[in-house]
Formats: sequence, C-alpha cells, structure tokens
Amino acid sequence: MKKQINKSVFWALAFSVVLVFSAQSQSENSPSRDALMLESIYNETMTNAKAYDWLRFLSLQIGGRLSGSVEAEQAVEYTKSVLNDLGLDRVYLQPVMVPKWVRGAPEYAYYETAPGLSTTVPITALGGSVATPSIGLKAKVIEVKGLEELEKLGRRVIEGKIVFYNRPMNPQTIQTFDAYGACVDQRYAGALEAAKYGAVGVIVRSMNLRKDDFPHTGSMSYGESPINSRIPAAAISTNGADLLSATLRLNPETTFYFKQNCRAFPDVKSYNVIGEIKGSVYPEEIMVVGGHLDSWDLGDGAHDDGAGVVQSIEVLRTLKAIGYKPKRTLRAVLFMNEENGLRGAREYASESESLGEKHVFALESDSGGFTPRGFQFDTSPQNFERLQKWSALFYPYFTDRFELGGSGADVGPLKSQGTVLAGLRPDSQRYFDHHHSDHDTFDQVNKRELELGAAAMASLLYLIDTYGADTPTN
Amino acid sequence: MKKQINKSVFWALAFSVVLVFSAQSQSENSPSRDALMLESIYNETMTNAKAYDWLRFLSLQIGGRLSGSVEAEQAVEYTKSVLNDLGLDRVYLQPVMVPKWVRGAPEYAYYETAPGLSTTVPITALGGSVATPSIGLKAKVIEVKGLEELEKLGRRVIEGKIVFYNRPMNPQTIQTFDAYGACVDQRYAGALEAAKYGAVGVIVRSMNLRKDDFPHTGSMSYGESPINSRIPAAAISTNGADLLSATLRLNPETTFYFKQNCRAFPDVKSYNVIGEIKGSVYPEEIMVVGGHLDSWDLGDGAHDDGAGVVQSIEVLRTLKAIGYKPKRTLRAVLFMNEENGLRGAREYASESESLGEKHVFALESDSGGFTPRGFQFDTSPQNFERLQKWSALFYPYFTDRFELGGSGADVGPLKSQGTVLAGLRPDSQRYFDHHHSDHDTFDQVNKRELELGAAAMASLLYLIDTYGADTPTN
Repeated sequence: MKKQINKSVFWALAFSVVLVFSAQSQSENSPSRDALMLESIYNETMTNAKAYDWLRFLSLQIGGRLSGSVEAEQAVEYTKSVLNDLGLDRVYLQPVMVPKWVRGAPEYAYYETAPGLSTTVPITALGGSVATPSIGLKAKVIEVKGLEELEKLGRRVIEGKIVFYNRPMNPQTIQTFDAYGACVDQRYAGALEAAKYGAVGVIVRSMNLRKDDFPHTGSMSYGESPINSRIPAAAISTNGADLLSATLRLNPETTFYFKQNCRAFPDVKSYNVIGEIKGSVYPEEIMVVGGHLDSWDLGDGAHDDGAGVVQSIEVLRTLKAIGYKPKRTLRAVLFMNEENGLRGAREYASESESLGEKHVFALESDSGGFTPRGFQFDTSPQNFERLQKWSALFYPYFTDRFELGGSGADVGPLKSQGTVLAGLRPDSQRYFDHHHSDHDTFDQVNKRELELGAAAMASLLYLIDTYGADTPTN
Repeated sequence: MKKQINKSVFWALAFSVVLVFSAQSQSENSPSRDALMLESIYNETMTNAKAYDWLRFLSLQIGGRLSGSVEAEQAVEYTKSVLNDLGLDRVYLQPVMVPKWVRGAPEYAYYETAPGLSTTVPITALGGSVATPSIGLKAKVIEVKGLEELEKLGRRVIEGKIVFYNRPMNPQTIQTFDAYGACVDQRYAGALEAAKYGAVGVIVRSMNLRKDDFPHTGSMSYGESPINSRIPAAAISTNGADLLSATLRLNPETTFYFKQNCRAFPDVKSYNVIGEIKGSVYPEEIMVVGGHLDSWDLGDGAHDDGAGVVQSIEVLRTLKAIGYKPKRTLRAVLFMNEENGLRGAREYASESESLGEKHVFALESDSGGFTPRGFQFDTSPQNFERLQKWSALFYPYFTDRFELGGSGADVGPLKSQGTVLAGLRPDSQRYFDHHHSDHDTFDQVNKRELELGAAAMASLLYLIDTYGADTPTN
C-alpha cells in the first residue's frame, strides 16, 4: 500500500467523537482538558518510554523466572532498582513464601508403533506434575476429547494406560481467551481425573491455536489426592498431538514413552516488588497498577507477563515525566507467583487488609504486550455505565472497547475491599502462540504495541484519579 | 494470564449491542438474519480457510514479484490456477503493459570519516532510481529533515553533495499510515528536488518506525526532468540513518559512497487476474474485492500485498463454501503493478469504462495481513451514515471501526463510475516494520489475523450484496 489515508478526515472523525462525548458528558467531566491530558500522556510514552528497554533486560539478561528460581530473585532485584531510579516516594519489597517446582533435565518422549519403530515428539512437564519413574513411563494410549469422556470409557478401558487429552482450542471463537477457557480443564484437572480410573500418565494437547512444535506448560493440580495416586502429566505440541492422534487411528496399539524429572521442593521466600507515589489530596485512597514478575521457565516470559510488569512501571515513569501529581496514592505492584500459586496476590491483599488500607482501584496487565483494544471492568453495571463514557477519549488511540466483566488474577483478591478492578485487553489473536512456551520471547514483542498499552493504562489511571473509581468524589 | 475472561458476560454484551442495533435499524435490515449469516461466514473462514496456504506458496515458492519479473508472471499463473480450482463462473487474465525496473547486483554503501576509516551501512535502491556510475558515487553529505530545507540551504551548500533526507516517522502519530504520509515525500520527490540544487545523489531514511537494519525501498519519481539531470537515490536503514547522522555531527566532512546497478527496461506485457461469480439477480451490478499481485523485490511481499490477494480469493471461496449465491456479480481482481505504476488498476477501470460496466462497490485489502480493526469508506456522508449502522454486526468480531475517508490505490480509478469504495483497515502498528523490505516475509503473517480479515471482507460484501452499496435497491 502506498496511498496515504486521508489524515484530515481521520482527525475530523476522531474529534467529532470527542465533541459528541463533550455534549453528552456529565458535569463531572471536563473533556477538552482530559483529551489534552491523554494526548500529553501518549506523546510522552510513545516518545520516551523505557518499557521496551526494561523488557529487553528482564527477558534477555534474566530470562524465564519461575517462582523460587534464581531468575525470579534477579527479577526482584532488577525491578526494584528500576523503581528506585524513578525517584518515587517509596520502593519496597513485600516478603511472601512461594512454591518451588523445578523441571530438572529436559523431558523426552516418543511413540512406538512397533518394536523399534519410534518417533520422538516435543513435550513439556506441566507445572506441579510429579516426575515419571527414572527409567520413564511406557504404556498404551487412550485418546479423549475431554474430561467428560473418562466416565463413559471407564476403568476397564483406561486402567494402565496413558490418557491423551486432545480437545483443540476452537478456531471459531474470536476471543482466544474464551477458546482457552473451554479447554484448559484438561490441563488443570486431567491427571487428577484420569488417575481415578487407573491411568498411569497424562499427555495433554498444548493450549495453542497454531500448529507448531512448541509444547506449552501451565499449572495443574492433584487436588487433595494421596501422594501415591499422583500420575505424571505433560503437554505435547499441537503438531505432536495431531501426529499422535493420526497414528492412533492407524494403529490403536501404539505405545507412548515419556520421561520427566521435575520435582517440588519446600516453599522458599520471595517478594512482591512495590513502588509508590503518595497521593497529594487523598493519600489513603490507593490505586494499583500491576502485572506479575514470575513467569514459566520456558521462553523468557516476555509477553507473560514481562509486558505487564514493564507497562506498570512505565505508567509511573510517564506520569512523573509529564509532571502529573496524583491526588490518590498510586502503586505499581509487581506480583510474585501468579503462575503456580497466586501467593503474591493473596499476600498483598491480606496484608493490605491487616493494615486497614483502602484500595479504590486496581488495574492489571496480564494478557500480553499486543496492541491494546480496550479495558474490562469488574464493577457494578451502574458504575460501568459511568466509566464507559470515557471510552470516547480512547477512540483516537484505537483502545476504546470498554467491557463489563473481568479484570485479572492478581488484582482479584482485592475485590473483598470493594475495589473497582480492571484489566487491559490487548488483541488476543497471537497470545496463545506464545503463552507458557519457548516461543514467549522478547523478539515477539513489538515496541509500539507494548507502549500503547502503557499509555492507555496511564490514561485510565489519570481519569480514575481525577473523577474517582466508583462514584464522583469531587 | 491464566484466569478465564468471563465468557457469558462477553456474549451478553456482544448481543446487547446487536439488540440495540436491531431496535434502531431501518426496515431495510434484518439484523438477526444478518448476524447469523456473519456467524456462518466467520465459522467457515476460521475453520476451512485456504488463504494461509495460498500465501505460503505465493511467498515461499514464488517470492518477491516486482512487475515485469519472472516471479510476477509465476504469480499470475498460480493465482489463476487457484481461482480455476474454485469452480467460479469465469476466470480470466486482463493484459496490461507494465514497467520493468530491475535492481541488478546488490547495492553497496559505506561512509568514511577519514581515508581508510569506513563503515558499511545497509542501503537499497529506490524503485525507479537510476544507477550510480559503475565505479560508484562518493561525495560529502548534507543532512536535511525534509524537502523544505533545500531552498534555505541553496545551491551553494548542496552542489556536488549527497543529500541525506532524515526526517523520521513521528512515533506520536498513532495511525502509522499518517506518519508515513508525513515523510514519504522525501522518498518520492527527494531526488527530483535535490537535483535542482546540484546534488549528485540522495540517501533517504527508511520509512520505518522501528530501529533496525532493513532498508525499505519504494517508488520515487524524476517527474519530467531531463534524463541527464537524474541522480541516483537509495534508502538507508533506520539504524544506518541514526549512525550516519551521529557521525555527521561529529565530523561534517564525512563522505558517503554508494553503488547501485538498477536499470529500467522497456515496458513488458503482464496481467490482472480476475475471477468472477455471476450475480443471480443483478448480474450487471459488479462488486470488486481485490489486492495487488505485484510486490517489491525485497522480502517475499507476504504483507504487501500477498495478504490482500489471498484474502480476496478467500472471500469467494468462503461464500461458495457456505452456499451463498450473490445477487450481484462478485469479482476478485488481483491487480498488477500497484507498486510502481498502478497500470493494472488503470487498465481495469478503463476497460470497464469501454465496456459500459457498472461497478457498484469495490473493496481493497492492501494494508497488511494484521488483525482487522474495521473499514474505511469513500462515499457520501449520507451513505456512510447508512453503512456505519452495520458496524454493530462486526462488534463480536472486533472489526467494528467504520470510518469515512479512504479506500485503496487500486480501486481508486473506479471512482469515476460513481462506485462506492472501501478499504480493509487492519491494525497498523507493525505494518511499516515490514513494508517494502527484506522483513516482509511469510513468517511475519499470523494465520488467524489474516483469516479474520478475509471473513470481515466477505461479511461486508454479503451486506452490500443484500442491501446495496449506495441506496437501498430492494
């Protein structure tokens, strides 16, 4: 394409929307001032943001940072030093005990159609899984499309076998997080359920819409089941799953071998990392912006959730850079252990409760560093109606989709304080290509897309700070 | 992120918009039928699309396909065979004479701060440029930020030098096509203007917001200036431009050497490729969906405009697959020579005029295969108001940004028929990372994002076919 899109028409249209908003808005708002403030925020972020440089360090110099790992502690130290350099009012670490699960030597797997005729396939142990016996595990395979098939097949069919969960994410579901939600029970509860029917192991199709060779890990749980009933569980790449499924159709006697060496250790001490700008008028009213500092050990966690971490810090940098002094206290909280425990989020909320703090608003970015499309809010329909009016201000920035009904895992525990919760919603199409795999790497993050997210977050926080999170306070 | 976004809330919201639309809509529309038809279109495309496979062949088996090249002719043959396989009513080639400009041996460039102290930098000849002398061209450099600086500096400063145009794309401009439009005069007219002041060559900063090592080519023109006044012009990568600029600040005596071997040949014969489904009720009313088949010779032209080509074909495949029989004639037109001549588009419009055809609508995809955000329309404000009501139908597909004021270069010449024109508008953030460079490659296209564009295009054509392009006809 070489033709220029008509610029004046675009701006005419953009401003007409702002003007419409102006005419309709309540007296609490002063749209032209707000539009100018957003412009100032976006200009600062898109020109001088440090988020991409911070993400490069977090991804390439530190790398995957699973809770309890050396890398997680390096990430604590690094982000603390970044926050310190911003000259905030307060930077501190909040101790929290976290699980320590270690992958050990790389996994190995193959299927065998006849003695000596084997094909290796890429797998990765699910987070929290037990190891296989040290010589590995080999058994026939029973393929199912989900947990609900187990009962129908029964112990007679399943006992002694490896259950292969192969329900794919639905490509017809446009919002990919919904497609993920409709499959992830296989990963989370697959081993627990299959063990009840005597399965000896579990292989799960990776939660990925793309056909490729990356296996995707993620959390799983044995619930309260006895230690000796726990069977090993691994994810297989989507290409591997298709290959295994086709092979099983040709030869149902195909056996599967896998070996994994993962192990859980006692909990270790780690930290949430917190940076704060004290509110100038209502210091007791706290606004949080955050993401999670831990990641899985595959890839370097650039999208999940390095992006949310550096965007949250960028919000503080940008607002300081333009000289904005929040009326309410603004905290960047970098939560530890979202992936396999949510301990950081629970500790933060629980300590906040003990201190009698009052969180009015908490915004999370944990859906990747892609072009932002808008926000989701967890609040009353009445309040959402009020917040939604602000979306017109985000139209010129292509981030004006405001929806009711979600936020994020790490801000969730604050809900008991009555906090209005929100989540940044980037474009979801590529997220699961990367999620929890070796393909979640820094080179897959676009600088502008990352920065647009940070600017949108800073803009929303400015509006919340100015007009209040729930009901107008001034 | 692991928490599922609340699905029921999402759908409740999505449908509430459709219902609002339903209540407000004119009698011409039957929203629930339309919503179901769009769902059927999207389901078909997202499940069975062939667009990605076609693009793989076009990109990896054929590659860059500049007008007049062997690859361009291979692309004509390939897409014709693809259209033939769809079982359309008519598939044909429309002959058109196109320019043939050939890059020749790779370009070479360095700057020299002192005799023997040289640093190579990545450049690429601009499309249409003359070659340097066979021993290359070496001269001092004068850096400017745009054409307007030339007059101020005057012949005294510029004569005998290489003019280095270094105005960067503005990172604060959110719609990157606007940032491109504000810089591209340097590339298009830089050589023509600099030659008037006695410059011996031109180096232009690549039209790319990213800092990297890819030089980006693109069309330039000498206008009607005499052959012997034409000076060679090349693009330098953004990193190269920053390096050269910093070096010039330290040492204004720095010289620049470059050698390029490009050459223009006489025009050659090529083709637009056209596939048609005859209208069942109004066969004389033609709707076009198209992209351009040629690309630059760098990279493999996957985004520009392989994406638009395969999306246009996919529209026909999808509509046939769901059994939809258009009332109006629907043509996929794969235009030749958009990049350096627009000859295919002009030929198509001019032949259409001769035949007395009536094009009611023409939709172009030529902004990359990224997640679609919406459409732009070139029509009257009154008609746009009518079309805009359809945007609610695209809300569940995240493609509901309808704007007045643009379409595309290849459908442009149809405007004289009074045709309503439109362009697909994908997310623009990454487009110029790839555009006209070695970085425009198949691996940079996401399958789902490409397919969502095709489904949106098919959906818009369904609505146009059902309700008419300009005023209700039934």
